[in-house]
Amino acid sequence: MKYELQKTDSASKARAGKITTDHGEILTPIFMPVGTAGTVKAVHQRELENDIHAQIILGNTYHLYLRPGLDILERAGGLHKFNGWTKPILTDSGGYQVFSLKDIRKISEEGVKFQSHIDGSRHLFTPESVMDIQRVIGADIIMAFDECAPYPCDYNYAKKSMEMTHRWLKRCCDRFDATEGLYGYSQTLFPIVQGSVYKDLRIQSAEFIAGQNREGNAIGGLAVGEPAEKMYETIDYVNDILPQDKPRYLMGVGTPENILESIALGIDMFDCVMPTRNARNGMLFTTQGIINIRNEKWKDDYSPIDENLGGYTSTFYSKAYLRHLVKCDEILAAQVASIHNLTFYLWLVGQAREHILAGDFVEWKKVIVKKLMERL
Amino acid sequence: MKYELQKTDSASKARAGKITTDHGEILTPIFMPVGTAGTVKAVHQRELENDIHAQIILGNTYHLYLRPGLDILERAGGLHKFNGWTKPILTDSGGYQVFSLKDIRKISEEGVKFQSHIDGSRHLFTPESVMDIQRVIGADIIMAFDECAPYPCDYNYAKKSMEMTHRWLKRCCDRFDATEGLYGYSQTLFPIVQGSVYKDLRIQSAEFIAGQNREGNAIGGLAVGEPAEKMYETIDYVNDILPQDKPRYLMGVGTPENILESIALGIDMFDCVMPTRNARNGMLFTTQGIINIRNEKWKDDYSPIDENLGGYTSTFYSKAYLRHLVKCDEILAAQVASIHNLTFYLWLVGQAREHILAGDFVEWKKVIVKKLMERL
Repeated sequence: MKYELQKTDSASKARAGKITTDHGEILTPIFMPVGTAGTVKAVHQRELENDIHAQIILGNTYHLYLRPGLDILERAGGLHKFNGWTKPILTDSGGYQVFSLKDIRKISEEGVKFQSHIDGSRHLFTPESVMDIQRVIGADIIMAFDECAPYPCDYNYAKKSMEMTHRWLKRCCDRFDATEGLYGYSQTLFPIVQGSVYKDLRIQSAEFIAGQNREGNAIGGLAVGEPAEKMYETIDYVNDILPQDKPRYLMGVGTPENILESIALGIDMFDCVMPTRNARNGMLFTTQGIINIRNEKWKDDYSPIDENLGGYTSTFYSKAYLRHLVKCDEILAAQVASIHNLTFYLWLVGQAREHILAGDFVEWKKVIVKKLMERL
Repeated sequence: MKYELQKTDSASKARAGKITTDHGEILTPIFMPVGTAGTVKAVHQRELENDIHAQIILGNTYHLYLRPGLDILERAGGLHKFNGWTKPILTDSGGYQVFSLKDIRKISEEGVKFQSHIDGSRHLFTPESVMDIQRVIGADIIMAFDECAPYPCDYNYAKKSMEMTHRWLKRCCDRFDATEGLYGYSQTLFPIVQGSVYKDLRIQSAEFIAGQNREGNAIGGLAVGEPAEKMYETIDYVNDILPQDKPRYLMGVGTPENILESIALGIDMFDCVMPTRNARNGMLFTTQGIINIRNEKWKDDYSPIDENLGGYTSTFYSKAYLRHLVKCDEILAAQVASIHNLTFYLWLVGQAREHILAGDFVEWKKVIVKKLMERL
């Protein structure tokens, strides 16, 4: 993987860049649609490419490990071959998922023992096994196995958790560096900064992560319930430590506002289930503000979902028709709303990139954030 | 509406024809995907047109009347404008739906009182109101309000039901002929032959329906549980009575075999929920036979769903990937399987048409039916 820093904004820490992988280029800042089980819910692969203009999608190690399972993925030739997505893929490490299993998982220095949410079967994830699993899945960018501490989290727990995450990172790197990709293309490993909301821990973690000298770095354990200001503050000082010449990935974030503010703080990569999950609940992000399509007021609004966004889905279907689909629990409702919201998210980061390159990112952000977060 | 009979097969009663409506042409024999609530479940409108090559779709009066409701449809400018489908639409009369409400409907000479399956609200459908409703929905072809007798059904009930259906038809025709389309294009009314499985009743009904001299005719009350041989026998003598120079629509049928056998008996138009409903349950109709994609045997079959059928969906996605989606209850499973099955159904009637025109329909049917109905 290569990263080229193309421009840094003079009025903020926002950056425009280009990541090159064996599956193609990614222009940053970028949003990565979440494809948990190897499918971005309700969206065809060609729609991801042609309508949403996704450049990279995310898969979840935990889910893919359980279903379809590693044997099926390996014999397919990896996830790209299995689901037909030919552009870059990033996989998380499964850490977030197994920790959220709460009552059916046990953490030790070795790793995490957990039970499948599907059939209760017992499994063990270790830093080493998670590297091996992600080799089999074959994502272009794979993530270190970390503990994502809950919020709120007391200082001692946060410190111990962070230290274990650092020890696990060493084991991840050792295993990753001792192995090779299975399918003839390169993979790269991103380590993850943890430390909850404690500045000294976050700084210590950022320095440790930066010191590993991997090809990109991630910030985890944010957007887990802490105030947005706390999140921005943390990103700000962590990014002062993470190297300039490598992409920075903020995991699991967030609203359009979160994304623009984090771009201003020097983040390059985002993923979040919000555009697709909210779509399935009838919440639309549009260029004019936020729409709850279930509201009575849209029942006879025959105007396109979002004329300014453009594209088939957002201009072909009307608000009244989409509301009807949602009220009837029709599958097409999830399809239309998911494509629309993801198209919006990709438009958002694309616009941010253009304004960074044009030099007016901060002025643009000030105006657009208000508009985008307004409830229509 | 115009119907041109283009060719009648010499070895069977199969016909190739062309229906012309104000929303475009329909080449027959044709299959009409069912879009109950103004959406063919899990399928985008552009996919219906470009991938499935649908020429006409069906909407359900009962469902559309309840949701979104007539005010919303009328202010949209009719169903075409509401859902964006610009080609022909046919609506059923709601008869089948209200009769299937069993415990919450009451039939009288006037019409049918029923309760909504959604909120229990009380409604009355009469032959007149159903014509008015279908004027508002604005389908190109609308259906008479009939009683679809259950199976089995004793002779006396079948006779009385048929006689009432005939009286209702007169009222439908009177109302239809006394009104005009609301949106500047023509609509046409198809009457429906009933009479259960009783030959004398069916003949009496077919003669009555033929005598109305409408622009097309339908056969209802079949494929409701009677043996397939009984259905074919009924179609055979009914079609000897229904006029040659008008299209014949067999309502709610059926399997690929049912469709080909009925084409051989002179049917021109079909609709059925089977391709979409079965798709959502993981049952695929393919050019090689029937696949239950949930079966273990497909878990590592990385070949396309149906290479011979062609098209994006059936060639891009593998059987193993689709099986994975189905097992995970992913929305994309319904999308992929629905597009595939509908593409297959449109391919099937298109092939039938080509073989009718080429003069080898019966030979082709003999070979292909066996293959298509084989369980793989």
